Amino acid sequence: MKSIIEIIQQKQWIGWLLFIFTIFVVFLIGLFGASIMERRSEEKLAFQLVKPINDWEPRNEVWGENFPREFETYKSTFDTTFASKYGGSAKRDLLEDSPEAVILWAGYAFSRQYNQARGHYHAVEDIQNTLRTGVPQPATCWTCKSTDVPRLMNKMGVKEFYKSKWSELGHEVTNNIGCQDCHDTKTMNLRITRPSLLEALQRNGKDINNITHQEMRSYVCAQCHVEYYFKGKEEKYLTFPWDKGFSVEAMEEYYDENAHTDWEHKLSKAKMLKAQHPDYEMFATGIHFERGLSCADCHMPYKSEGGVKFTNHKIQSPLNDVASSCGVCHRENEETLIKNVNDRQDKIRELRVQAEKSLFQLHIETKTAWEKGAKEEEMKPILKFIRHAQWRWDFVSATNGSGFHSPIEAARILGSSIQKSQEGRILLARILAKYGITEEIQMPDIYTKEKAQKFIGLKMDSLQTVKNDFLNNTVVNWNKTKKNY
Amino acid sequence: MKSIIEIIQQKQWIGWLLFIFTIFVVFLIGLFGASIMERRSEEKLAFQLVKPINDWEPRNEVWGENFPREFETYKSTFDTTFASKYGGSAKRDLLEDSPEAVILWAGYAFSRQYNQARGHYHAVEDIQNTLRTGVPQPATCWTCKSTDVPRLMNKMGVKEFYKSKWSELGHEVTNNIGCQDCHDTKTMNLRITRPSLLEALQRNGKDINNITHQEMRSYVCAQCHVEYYFKGKEEKYLTFPWDKGFSVEAMEEYYDENAHTDWEHKLSKAKMLKAQHPDYEMFATGIHFERGLSCADCHMPYKSEGGVKFTNHKIQSPLNDVASSCGVCHRENEETLIKNVNDRQDKIRELRVQAEKSLFQLHIETKTAWEKGAKEEEMKPILKFIRHAQWRWDFVSATNGSGFHSPIEAARILGSSIQKSQEGRILLARILAKYGITEEIQMPDIYTKEKAQKFIGLKMDSLQTVKNDFLNNTVVNWNKTKKNY
Repeated sequence: MKSIIEIIQQKQWIGWLLFIFTIFVVFLIGLFGASIMERRSEEKLAFQLVKPINDWEPRNEVWGENFPREFETYKSTFDTTFASKYGGSAKRDLLEDSPEAVILWAGYAFSRQYNQARGHYHAVEDIQNTLRTGVPQPATCWTCKSTDVPRLMNKMGVKEFYKSKWSELGHEVTNNIGCQDCHDTKTMNLRITRPSLLEALQRNGKDINNITHQEMRSYVCAQCHVEYYFKGKEEKYLTFPWDKGFSVEAMEEYYDENAHTDWEHKLSKAKMLKAQHPDYEMFATGIHFERGLSCADCHMPYKSEGGVKFTNHKIQSPLNDVASSCGVCHRENEETLIKNVNDRQDKIRELRVQAEKSLFQLHIETKTAWEKGAKEEEMKPILKFIRHAQWRWDFVSATNGSGFHSPIEAARILGSSIQKSQEGRILLARILAKYGITEEIQMPDIYTKEKAQKFIGLKMDSLQTVKNDFLNNTVVNWNKTKKNY
Repeated sequence: MKSIIEIIQQKQWIGWLLFIFTIFVVFLIGLFGASIMERRSEEKLAFQLVKPINDWEPRNEVWGENFPREFETYKSTFDTTFASKYGGSAKRDLLEDSPEAVILWAGYAFSRQYNQARGHYHAVEDIQNTLRTGVPQPATCWTCKSTDVPRLMNKMGVKEFYKSKWSELGHEVTNNIGCQDCHDTKTMNLRITRPSLLEALQRNGKDINNITHQEMRSYVCAQCHVEYYFKGKEEKYLTFPWDKGFSVEAMEEYYDENAHTDWEHKLSKAKMLKAQHPDYEMFATGIHFERGLSCADCHMPYKSEGGVKFTNHKIQSPLNDVASSCGVCHRENEETLIKNVNDRQDKIRELRVQAEKSLFQLHIETKTAWEKGAKEEEMKPILKFIRHAQWRWDFVSATNGSGFHSPIEAARILGSSIQKSQEGRILLARILAKYGITEEIQMPDIYTKEKAQKFIGLKMDSLQTVKNDFLNNTVVNWNKTKKNY
């Protein structure tokens, strides 16, 4: 028998076969490399606008003709089904969930109606419909609701815009939060269209010309998802209270020094602060921010469709799309990750409910003290405890994510809220004793939304009638005179 | 000129070269594969004992002759330099850090002396030296200090061991926490030598024959790093209060139902609970546990020396060896990771200090109420608030890791501690008012350890004298009659 060596020696074709095989493999590697390079270059691919987009173009559908995938996903924020342990859909009635909150907001419009926010697609409709609007209010309230705002600010001037009445601009504000709020009309680069954020950053010494793209992926959200207030009785100038930093204490100090008050509490007479939704500030204290993530990383994860990679513009809870958002970094399965989020939120919720209860008792006991003849001077420290304790509770409650964005910070804040409201109650017990009350104050039965609203003297029927009139007249007129930009 | 094809056709040696090259590459891959297989089989490598180890062998150095690397690292627990933001070395005086704690423990030995624990290598020496021992106390206190304990339990019987006096066994207990506490003398497998853990697991329906190796890497620690108490006035039977679960609430309920009290508070007369160090229970609520980690993963990371991979037996803070512990999973640099730990601990510390302050005020105010003639009946709910609020504070304070093992749970617990002690103070303000006190109770100046100890009537000089006598007589005698096993 011939040895294998002899066969190879005799048959040159084996050598040839090896040679051809090598060439083939190298060819495949080349193909593979080219594919990688192509994917890299995709990122830098310039786009060509099918239809030009004018400056200040507010109509999302016009942008959408150029960017069908982004627009389609944006449009699906119409869908308001959220993944959440506590209720599966948006427009959940948060006052029904926590009737104590009605008491905490007595004298303020939030006690009338407070529903979980729906997607961006519903922004204009929802602000028209809520029982919190209709009362004379500044145009500043439109700022975060519509792509018409940058256009109007450009036309009217920023100061003039804020100074106007909300009701005056209804016919001009028709397009929901969308494309041009965050994108440049020509380059599609992310941009900041709301002056309040730029002003706050500048006041804090941030070089706004040196903002990275990754920072922008949070800053465009931070145009609205922040703590803010309307500065000046007339000016109503939208301002972020960030001048001393943006911890809960730093903003409280800012408000205190500027003697800012959102409303006087109807029962306790305390000068209250309403936290808006300091989502960005809270997120910035959490581990995901510290690891360099942006809002968009979790709320607008990348998506692939027909080989095209794009940003999913269905801004929503990452729990609705764990695989694309959490799954990029976390290797655990979806069920585990959702459980982890729920566990955190449960613990924060426990503290929040406790803080809520203490505040409720504090307001009622303070009301009793006034009724018994307590003096302004002796009540001063108590009113301060109320203001600070409720600010802390609201800071966490009003923030999206139920504490998930920074659970330890949320717990720390709620712990200090409990400490402060209970401290107020201790002082109060001493004052009440001076006025002859040494027994526990009986808490009123406010354990449904309706009972709570009745207790603080809200006439919900007439509020609803006024609202209906407003919708049937003012809003109908707005729609008639609606400007088709 | 000849084409390259012609050259190859003519020169058979090129074909040969390719062939030989292929063989060479395959050979290299083979070598590489073998290396992988070898590393895998390392894990299963049986060891050979150089010197046999007898049953119940307590002397760590005897084990050490067989396992020099493990022994050397174990021995280095002699080194007590810890990485910590709040003080860089062990034996830190925790009462100096928090003089309020002296008040919180008034009437209990912890108010005398409470130093940060040092490494396992110092266990016997430290329990002899602390001012907390010397008073008549059960032998149960030895249980977690020495490798002589399993030997003694085997000799005397478990019940008899617990029933004995601490001072009777001093000459028998000489070897520090070490090898045989966790290892089988023959197989070196991890094993549980302390009955209390096995009993607790069995009472909870855990099949103790089906414990995984990874579970064991935590359970061997959970023999001691847990919440426990001495059950029975005479029996002093070491028991884990886990029958209702091991959350802070479940154990509190257990203690309440069993009417267990560690001591009556000297100032407030409340029936107190002392949390031991529920490290395992706290860890079990945290994310690292949830991701399947064991104590050993972070506190005893693997180490390589001369190609041999072994478990580092220098049990210590992972912050001392971030690269080997955290670095296995976390890709961030050491500085970042230490900052992350410190940030968490800072927030927990803030809540802890707040909880401490409220408890301090509560004890002092309760003392005043008693002095003013308050009745047992009206004080009952307050004493309950004290018991529960301090149990919660202590549960977090006494636990190693300053809350890091489960920061959200720690914050939740501290938040509820604050709520409860402040609730007690509210009730108390009403009671005090009945007895004519409507002004704030002035807090005594206890803001150094010495002042605090003086305030609660501790005579530190005479305690130290008694201790010195004890060390010079009893302990000297122990050493004379020391049994060399």
